[in-house]
Amino acid sequence: MGDRHLDRIERAAKEAEAADLAALLVTPSADLVYLAGYDPPPLERLTCLVVRPGADPVLLVPALERPRAVESPVGGKVDVATWDDGDDPYEALGPLIPPDGRLGATDQMWAVHMLGAQRVRPDAEFTSASPVLSKLRSIKDPSELELLSRAARGADEAFRKLADTRLEGLREEEVAVLLASLLREVGHEEVSFTIVGSGPNGASPHHEPGGRAIRSGDPIVLDFGGKVGRYCSDISRTVCVGEPPRGFEEVYDVVREAQEAAFRAAAPGVTGLEIDAVARGVIEQAGYGERFIHRTGHGIGLEVHESPYISSENDDPLEAGMCFSIEPGIYLEGRFGVRIEDIVTVTEAGANRLNRADRDLRTVA
Amino acid sequence: MGDRHLDRIERAAKEAEAADLAALLVTPSADLVYLAGYDPPPLERLTCLVVRPGADPVLLVPALERPRAVESPVGGKVDVATWDDGDDPYEALGPLIPPDGRLGATDQMWAVHMLGAQRVRPDAEFTSASPVLSKLRSIKDPSELELLSRAARGADEAFRKLADTRLEGLREEEVAVLLASLLREVGHEEVSFTIVGSGPNGASPHHEPGGRAIRSGDPIVLDFGGKVGRYCSDISRTVCVGEPPRGFEEVYDVVREAQEAAFRAAAPGVTGLEIDAVARGVIEQAGYGERFIHRTGHGIGLEVHESPYISSENDDPLEAGMCFSIEPGIYLEGRFGVRIEDIVTVTEAGANRLNRADRDLRTVA
Repeated sequence: MGDRHLDRIERAAKEAEAADLAALLVTPSADLVYLAGYDPPPLERLTCLVVRPGADPVLLVPALERPRAVESPVGGKVDVATWDDGDDPYEALGPLIPPDGRLGATDQMWAVHMLGAQRVRPDAEFTSASPVLSKLRSIKDPSELELLSRAARGADEAFRKLADTRLEGLREEEVAVLLASLLREVGHEEVSFTIVGSGPNGASPHHEPGGRAIRSGDPIVLDFGGKVGRYCSDISRTVCVGEPPRGFEEVYDVVREAQEAAFRAAAPGVTGLEIDAVARGVIEQAGYGERFIHRTGHGIGLEVHESPYISSENDDPLEAGMCFSIEPGIYLEGRFGVRIEDIVTVTEAGANRLNRADRDLRTVA
Repeated sequence: MGDRHLDRIERAAKEAEAADLAALLVTPSADLVYLAGYDPPPLERLTCLVVRPGADPVLLVPALERPRAVESPVGGKVDVATWDDGDDPYEALGPLIPPDGRLGATDQMWAVHMLGAQRVRPDAEFTSASPVLSKLRSIKDPSELELLSRAARGADEAFRKLADTRLEGLREEEVAVLLASLLREVGHEEVSFTIVGSGPNGASPHHEPGGRAIRSGDPIVLDFGGKVGRYCSDISRTVCVGEPPRGFEEVYDVVREAQEAAFRAAAPGVTGLEIDAVARGVIEQAGYGERFIHRTGHGIGLEVHESPYISSENDDPLEAGMCFSIEPGIYLEGRFGVRIEDIVTVTEAGANRLNRADRDLRTVA
């Protein structure tokens, strides 16, 4: 497995050179897991993989974490440098990075570490490592696709089980707990989020499940995900408890059509903004443009939100192997919300859905 | 509850002024929970509370999270500004922060947000908000102390239950899973870490529990914690399965004495470095100075590691209400490790232990 990581580090170094970056500074994050298979928690103690074009990579870790770093997939293959508790970690980092030029930092690097690095390298220009690392990470290899598929199938299964459960009378927070246990039951090793927005609460896209009891006639926006083998799932379905409220079915059909049209538009060479425009077009045409208050989707992999973003800002052409969500929604304040989301992957020919749970309006008990 | 948050924001603004900071930029983190009671996950979409001396605070959030922000404890009491998906969030942040002067950022702010803020405010000097926010957060009020005590008592109880369990023959990772379920059983709503270092693995302070089966004669370093009401627990005990190996008891006694001496040294006016020196002195005197490879402790509260640090760098005097770990250790590569850790709080008279689990060497089955 180690060679896969060394290959990725080598590709990152090459891409860094092409992007005119003198080094990449990679702190604990999905970037570090991707490049080194090393997954310590982000902490106030500095851990940083330095990737340099034309020089060997080096992993700087707190002395007390040296054994853990050495046991990681790149341990023994990459130099491990340490700094001791009580010493200034940035003084240890300084000599490992070029004195000037452009340095690319992990997007999630903590500000305290960024400020420390800026202090010891005042002549360097710090920038995001994303143009290199997000790009590499956005194209999934077969083993990554397999994990994303397994995660998606698990989320589908959890949705099916939930939809077979009587929800009327439960509080949103109880449904959230149930969803979490269903995800674990179907093999997720981690539950990341469980949005349950019933009735008017569905109009808040990231609603925090609360004490509201679910009643007959409530639409419910369900949006949940977790991890399988470190790779993320993320699915949204909107169900209705009994008879839907007036106007709901029309809105549901618009969202469903927007989701379908965006999916059909996905293919190599198409841009994120074009797909976003397709979904947005369907919703605007139906008169709900102002009520679609977020982008159409986001890439997914080791992180639940990563490149490529399916939004009006992204004019990079999609490539085969990319994975992302397509999740248009319509939110009617005080009434209800509708969102339908699948993870899809771009193929040579177009795109495949990784989620297969039914998108027909599901009436639940 | 909202007033507690407004009070904290007001104090933060005053302290910012005293520290010559033109504004504090607070992104999702324990800082934001402390000041606003608002706890969205840190994401690529910018959420930032701007605290300004002499001006009202403002909370900038993604438009789709506005409902959630408005429902938070400071919703309706603090201005909520939004930016739309597709727009540049830093252009929205710019007008909310002074054009120059010193700006203090949350230590955990993501680099991508820091770089964005630096781009729209090139004439400002960015620095850590920690001298203001860590200091405020380090002194716990009675409700915070109550939650930390409850968390500590839960961790004690989980340890006692674990020590009554037969561990011989279990793999480290099985013990870790058991610890996690015990923590939940005693009322922890979140499990943050479960270190189980058996035999030679105990010599790696942050050992990742693995497939090693526990044998008779193994010392085991157990270090675990989670959250109760958002406040953290963190305890370490070292037990022995059956008869301890040669030399183990002597090392155990040294660590126990160091932990006791450091605890007795804790009082208002004493510094973190003085307490660290007390623990280190005991261990050095016994000839193991080189094997105590980390600081003596760390503050604890909404985060498991926060100010005050009990390390050779911290010469700030302790104050009543501060809470931190005292956790000296000795690590003998290839043989075993010993660490004993309690959370303590500084009182007017000295210090109290929040953890009460027995520190005598416990022999387990």
